[in-house]
Amino acid sequence: MVKNKSAQGQLDNSFQSGRVVTSYDVARKAGVSQSAVSRCFKPGASVSKKMREKVMKVATELGYEPNAIARSLITKRSNLVAVIISNLTNLYYPEVLAQLSQRLSDRGIRVLLFALDTESHADQVLAQIWQYQVDGVIAAAKLTNDQLAEFEKRQKPLVFYNRFYSNQAVNAVCCDQAEGAYHLVKGLVAAGHQSFGIIGGPDDSVVGRERTDASAACLSTMGTSDVTIVDGSFSYECGGAGVEMIREKRGSLPDAIICVNDMTAIGAIDALRYGHGKNVPEDVSVVGFDGVGPATWASFDLTTMRQPVGRMTEGAVEMLMERMENPDLPPEKRLFAGVFVDGTSAVFA
Amino acid sequence: MVKNKSAQGQLDNSFQSGRVVTSYDVARKAGVSQSAVSRCFKPGASVSKKMREKVMKVATELGYEPNAIARSLITKRSNLVAVIISNLTNLYYPEVLAQLSQRLSDRGIRVLLFALDTESHADQVLAQIWQYQVDGVIAAAKLTNDQLAEFEKRQKPLVFYNRFYSNQAVNAVCCDQAEGAYHLVKGLVAAGHQSFGIIGGPDDSVVGRERTDASAACLSTMGTSDVTIVDGSFSYECGGAGVEMIREKRGSLPDAIICVNDMTAIGAIDALRYGHGKNVPEDVSVVGFDGVGPATWASFDLTTMRQPVGRMTEGAVEMLMERMENPDLPPEKRLFAGVFVDGTSAVFA
Repeated sequence: MVKNKSAQGQLDNSFQSGRVVTSYDVARKAGVSQSAVSRCFKPGASVSKKMREKVMKVATELGYEPNAIARSLITKRSNLVAVIISNLTNLYYPEVLAQLSQRLSDRGIRVLLFALDTESHADQVLAQIWQYQVDGVIAAAKLTNDQLAEFEKRQKPLVFYNRFYSNQAVNAVCCDQAEGAYHLVKGLVAAGHQSFGIIGGPDDSVVGRERTDASAACLSTMGTSDVTIVDGSFSYECGGAGVEMIREKRGSLPDAIICVNDMTAIGAIDALRYGHGKNVPEDVSVVGFDGVGPATWASFDLTTMRQPVGRMTEGAVEMLMERMENPDLPPEKRLFAGVFVDGTSAVFA
Repeated sequence: MVKNKSAQGQLDNSFQSGRVVTSYDVARKAGVSQSAVSRCFKPGASVSKKMREKVMKVATELGYEPNAIARSLITKRSNLVAVIISNLTNLYYPEVLAQLSQRLSDRGIRVLLFALDTESHADQVLAQIWQYQVDGVIAAAKLTNDQLAEFEKRQKPLVFYNRFYSNQAVNAVCCDQAEGAYHLVKGLVAAGHQSFGIIGGPDDSVVGRERTDASAACLSTMGTSDVTIVDGSFSYECGGAGVEMIREKRGSLPDAIICVNDMTAIGAIDALRYGHGKNVPEDVSVVGFDGVGPATWASFDLTTMRQPVGRMTEGAVEMLMERMENPDLPPEKRLFAGVFVDGTSAVFA
């Protein structure tokens, strides 16, 4: 006991004095091979739980840690993945980020976070992404053709999250915006609504435009012409502002308001109830899109399309990992249908 | 024009063929010194806007980028900061993360994100943090004494976000939980409330315990003995469950319910209104803590203490940067008073 303690003391001292503890030191003390130690620290390497526990215990005692950065210069793998995300205050994205982070971490990969102020500002961060030699990038943001070309030039794997780029061969996982919008519009029309407002997204949002265009197209197909479309910004505030703009453009409120996402829908509901003294859904039906946490709150109980975030984040991570192993895989897109949530914010059939 | 295009073509080819473009190539083409190019890529270095634009333009044309990882082995600075954050689904933290990320990015620092599933699971990530040679750590999570000792042994700068550790010499920025709780309780008592429920946080949360203890202590000081305390989990769901537990323990609902955070308060309000048919605040007053976005929504208009997130995140980043420059600075704590938000979810005086 005393002997152990003294040995430990010496090792702590050598750690503090700056002597670098090597994998050989750990192997010798743990009574295993050097390659076994190496495997214990390599993400995804095959090693028994017992071996890992033994090695980790000794490594901790000795203060051993491999230098991931030095290793990355040799292996050309940094085990870093950049996640570009815009608009963390849109309540959909924190959930996406938490799940991506967890799933990458389960595979021994770390997340280098790039939070953009607006979706089209990726220029700010790409130069930095190249500098950090990340193994790949997941982008929930818009990239220009020039920026896409940079990825190709560098053979850097890239997966878009929830952006489909239908006319380009990119990797993407995406919720089926058009199918979801059609489902919502059909149910509203079938329930007898005859006049519609649509509160869209900001100018530079692909997702917003796709949902707005699909809703308008479906309404047109179904012979509904009383449709008022206004722009929004995916925020609670734009829901209230959108209701006001629709009322002004149309002269009165429509039967139903289709919102490009849940945050907008929640803002619209509050504005209808507390600003215009209307009942939702008796006077005006409101639908959203995304299925964020607050959509399920009793105050809103939103009729919406829930994105299958678990399946989508798992799909994005798998798709990226495959391309980190094999950069020559052809581009692939996976499209996930939204899950209809039959709330009470809309009269629906 | 044709000549330029041809030169550009050659350079693109040499890029694709794998020849590494050096800072010397950029300097020559831009007609500046090599050290000027180097300064343009060094975060925070002094360089004129015109010079930077000229150099960046040429660097982009040639496909030049410094290898931040190789540089970090020489400079011993990775320009990476680890941010440990638990519970991204608590709506307070996405805002904190977005602001930390922006403020670090403004200083040329990248965020390596570690999202924990629960606050006390930092063990999972510390080994990985050491491997990536981060320059410092901001932790919105709990660390044990052993873990704190690891930081000291490595002289790795650490700043706690919103955890004060009153009996330990650590760096921290924090909202004054006790002062905020006192302010809320005093206002409720002054308005005539006589019976109270408190919905606290989970077992392992320092913040939750501090707010709960301070509220209970203030009530006791003011001579109020009708106080029912139950545990929660910072979530919407625990607000409803907490209301139910308080009613069961007490036999009936109290005059006021003090919630450890806004999410809990919103859940409590919805449960009171839609589960128990009560009016808020006429039948029961509810207060929260944090000042998250949804607290301001018309459905809730929460009476709460708003944390000055802008000041706190700036304080945390400044404190960390100072210690990255000078690791010998003594530990420091900055305590920010919350800002009272006079909502309509409580009768308040």
